[in-house]
Amino acid sequence: MVKRLLRAGHECVVYDTHPGPGAELAKSGAEVAGSLAEMVSKLAAPRAIWIMVPAAVVQQTIEALAPLLSSNDAIIDGGNSHYHDDIRRAKTLAERGIHYVDVGTSGGVWGLERGYCQMIGGDPEIVSRLDGIFATLAPNEAPGESKGARADDGNAPSTSARGYLHCGPAGAGHFVKMVHNGIEYGLMAAYAEGLNILKNANVGHSKESADAETAPLRHPENYRFDLDLPNIVEVWRHGSVIGSWLLDLTAAAFTKSPNLAAFEGRVSDS
Amino acid sequence: MVKRLLRAGHECVVYDTHPGPGAELAKSGAEVAGSLAEMVSKLAAPRAIWIMVPAAVVQQTIEALAPLLSSNDAIIDGGNSHYHDDIRRAKTLAERGIHYVDVGTSGGVWGLERGYCQMIGGDPEIVSRLDGIFATLAPNEAPGESKGARADDGNAPSTSARGYLHCGPAGAGHFVKMVHNGIEYGLMAAYAEGLNILKNANVGHSKESADAETAPLRHPENYRFDLDLPNIVEVWRHGSVIGSWLLDLTAAAFTKSPNLAAFEGRVSDS
Amino acid sequence: MVKRLLRAGHECVVYDTHPGPGAELAKSGAEVAGSLAEMVSKLAAPRAIWIMVPAAVVQQTIEALAPLLSSNDAIIDGGNSHYHDDIRRAKTLAERGIHYVDVGTSGGVWGLERGYCQMIGGDPEIVSRLDGIFATLAPNEAPGESKGARADDGNAPSTSARGYLHCGPAGAGHFVKMVHNGIEYGLMAAYAEGLNILKNANVGHSKESADAETAPLRHPENYRFDLDLPNIVEVWRHGSVIGSWLLDLTAAAFTKSPNLAAFEGRVSDS
Amino acid sequence: MVKRLLRAGHECVVYDTHPGPGAELAKSGAEVAGSLAEMVSKLAAPRAIWIMVPAAVVQQTIEALAPLLSSNDAIIDGGNSHYHDDIRRAKTLAERGIHYVDVGTSGGVWGLERGYCQMIGGDPEIVSRLDGIFATLAPNEAPGESKGARADDGNAPSTSARGYLHCGPAGAGHFVKMVHNGIEYGLMAAYAEGLNILKNANVGHSKESADAETAPLRHPENYRFDLDLPNIVEVWRHGSVIGSWLLDLTAAAFTKSPNLAAFEGRVSDS
Repeated sequence: MVKRLLRAGHECVVYDTHPGPGAELAKSGAEVAGSLAEMVSKLAAPRAIWIMVPAAVVQQTIEALAPLLSSNDAIIDGGNSHYHDDIRRAKTLAERGIHYVDVGTSGGVWGLERGYCQMIGGDPEIVSRLDGIFATLAPNEAPGESKGARADDGNAPSTSARGYLHCGPAGAGHFVKMVHNGIEYGLMAAYAEGLNILKNANVGHSKESADAETAPLRHPENYRFDLDLPNIVEVWRHGSVIGSWLLDLTAAAFTKSPNLAAFEGRVSDS
Repeated sequence: MVKRLLRAGHECVVYDTHPGPGAELAKSGAEVAGSLAEMVSKLAAPRAIWIMVPAAVVQQTIEALAPLLSSNDAIIDGGNSHYHDDIRRAKTLAERGIHYVDVGTSGGVWGLERGYCQMIGGDPEIVSRLDGIFATLAPNEAPGESKGARADDGNAPSTSARGYLHCGPAGAGHFVKMVHNGIEYGLMAAYAEGLNILKNANVGHSKESADAETAPLRHPENYRFDLDLPNIVEVWRHGSVIGSWLLDLTAAAFTKSPNLAAFEGRVSDS
Repeated sequence: MVKRLLRAGHECVVYDTHPGPGAELAKSGAEVAGSLAEMVSKLAAPRAIWIMVPAAVVQQTIEALAPLLSSNDAIIDGGNSHYHDDIRRAKTLAERGIHYVDVGTSGGVWGLERGYCQMIGGDPEIVSRLDGIFATLAPNEAPGESKGARADDGNAPSTSARGYLHCGPAGAGHFVKMVHNGIEYGLMAAYAEGLNILKNANVGHSKESADAETAPLRHPENYRFDLDLPNIVEVWRHGSVIGSWLLDLTAAAFTKSPNLAAFEGRVSDS
Repeated sequence: MVKRLLRAGHECVVYDTHPGPGAELAKSGAEVAGSLAEMVSKLAAPRAIWIMVPAAVVQQTIEALAPLLSSNDAIIDGGNSHYHDDIRRAKTLAERGIHYVDVGTSGGVWGLERGYCQMIGGDPEIVSRLDGIFATLAPNEAPGESKGARADDGNAPSTSARGYLHCGPAGAGHFVKMVHNGIEYGLMAAYAEGLNILKNANVGHSKESADAETAPLRHPENYRFDLDLPNIVEVWRHGSVIGSWLLDLTAAAFTKSPNLAAFEGRVSDS
């Protein structure tokens, strides 16, 4: 995400508890800080600080950051926090004048090139102030490219057609992302169950045992299809109603591993 | 499908028990027959007859057609027959020298412009002879357009990247289509369940009763999101891992009906 | 529950916001109070106050009661509160020296004769002090009647074989009851799905349409069973592995209504 | 089942492809045959032959038996055949004058003492002729013992209250048994899922990692219940609405193995 921001001309100061990512990003033009305090000191107020850490350490990160910040600074949680925590954190930080924005982010390791879909929660003023960040991270296709572009109020066109959306108050971003991830798992389960049936469509070739617990196939002659899963997944990508990005990723996984026994790769960390 | 074939220069003789579709297709250049027998007589052998009728009347259609055909003619069932019936029909028709090919077809009403994804079952020779039909109906994108194109034998590239695939012997096409449709329903269920949760994310605004059977919301303040479903569906189409054609259709449905209570349209007839 | 306690010689003072239940219980020997305060004043310390109200009004009931109570009194919540609330309430009430015990109670309207199964959470001392109440409400079968009786520590036999169990600290009772209810709904779903299939086992008698969306029955002759559901449910009660109390209730419901379309009665208020 | 029949005074000739079971039954008074043919020859016509073999070998057993039988003999399939096969076999055997009766049998290894629940399909005359066998195998409780006993026609009381029922024509017995088994698996799944939650109710004691994929428990203090599963299962057997024979078996399994990780025993072969 930092690389995508840097490419677009944003200035970024980065900090990680491990030195590796900072060194890598320095090559792309990021300024690297050795501590949270140094990172904060290198940013001009009003600051925008995007935290991208495991959900289990968001709270301690915010507690370490907050005392270092000034009124009107903003913390953006781009991870997968529980939206109840967003509601609470926004209220607590507001007492210090610090803005809190939760951004559900989808796109995984492909986002650098493809852009990140962002579902955003927070007060309208601060979400608006940070628009340049969201617009850069988003796929942000050229106007007209998306036929489905929508205006949500009859005046300004919605940003949804460019890949980011202010969904509502604090928590709304991660709430929508939570449901989004639930849908994702449902989609993966549907593909996985279907592919598993196709893979076993040749079970009628097997010799069966006749024990007390196994019901025999009554018509094994109907289950003798040796199906080519990589090409079936590929054909579905062309004109079928079940075409999707997850199916594209599945096809790519089959190219690397034609006997793929299970979904692999980085799909789950979307 | 006839229009797509005519556009590509195929000659088509059409017959329907209702006169409307024939009259419509005549405008596009189809020759219209008044009966199955007339249709057969207007085609030169070896014939290719594509039947596209409800599964409940496939058997009677084949029984009416078969006596009219010559050895080496081919019947193509493009509907949603049960694959057990394909296996049986192929065997019965083979006794008369008639070829039988089952084609699971996905694409719905959008197929005219977009092409039809075809999953094909039958003997290799006859599937190969009919290749011109399948290639025309398929999306058939220009070579290289699909990065995922695959070769299934190291020599000729597979047709899968152009949107059609010979899956195996008789029945294999409808078997793969059956599983395809199961996946489709699973995908639709996943989107529907997720959208339903988003739609009800404002339940904390409601006044609740205190009866013996209803568990009250313990924290109604966490369920006060009034979410904009049309724009959420739209934003997911840009960069998110849950992007898909079904999501595109959902976004289009919301454009027509922003308060959409349920999936509408022609999705289920894929 | 009050009647079962009165029958065993317990003295009970009752209060309800509606006058009806009190009048009814007065006939059985209960002393009726006109307010919470009067109820408390008529009980000798240390008091044991069993509240049985909808989950939505438990909190306000406890807040009204607590100021009227003395240190060492006990509140027993016999309803279906969320166990998180139990943990919190026990802690808050402990600051005033008031004991809090949560009791998940199963048995419904049959409990008067049959006894109530009780899953109990709270501190051991207070649960032990209230043992006489739990033992009276429980089925409390004669020793030896239950072959499965267990000892949980090698010394005293567990009360589980008599129908009540101290499950753990505050919240443990309602936690176990919550899971118990989840199991109950799973059991009801299993019976309901099975009976629905049996009820429709004669679908092969129907005349089917031949439209594009309905897959016809390929072998309607296999679905022509007109099954007698009341007697099937009855036969399962005798020797089958799916015998259960819910099945007994189902059989009783069929006796009243042989064409029962859905589970009826008071099963859900367990 | 043979032992239960012998105890009641029935004369039984037995045959098994393995010598062990025959030797065992000889001690109980059964006459042992060394072949199907010998078994048939030792029985007086009209014969009643109960076959109890894995579903995979029913067909070959019937094909071996049929030529040995006389018109008016009866074959009873007490196993778990697919009901489609029953319908077909009844028709084929009827051409030779041989009766076919399918009996779905539940009760497992406990049936000897407890009796077997029997769901019966076949023509009324032959089912009636075999009544003595079914009545002996059934639990057959004393009249009046079952409050739920029903009459299905207003005249003779139904046999359902004694544990066996003529459900309909050939196939009806195994159809009802098939649904019965589906219900059984649903019940087992409900108990298993609930017990698994109880077993893990102490997850809040564990030290959690803070990686990118694991969502931390937000309130581990609410998941610190160390629950006693054997006693919880036991308490549910007394007065709770989820009491059942499967729960009794679960309690018995816990007595043998208090740390039971999964359902064990012979439940699935009902």
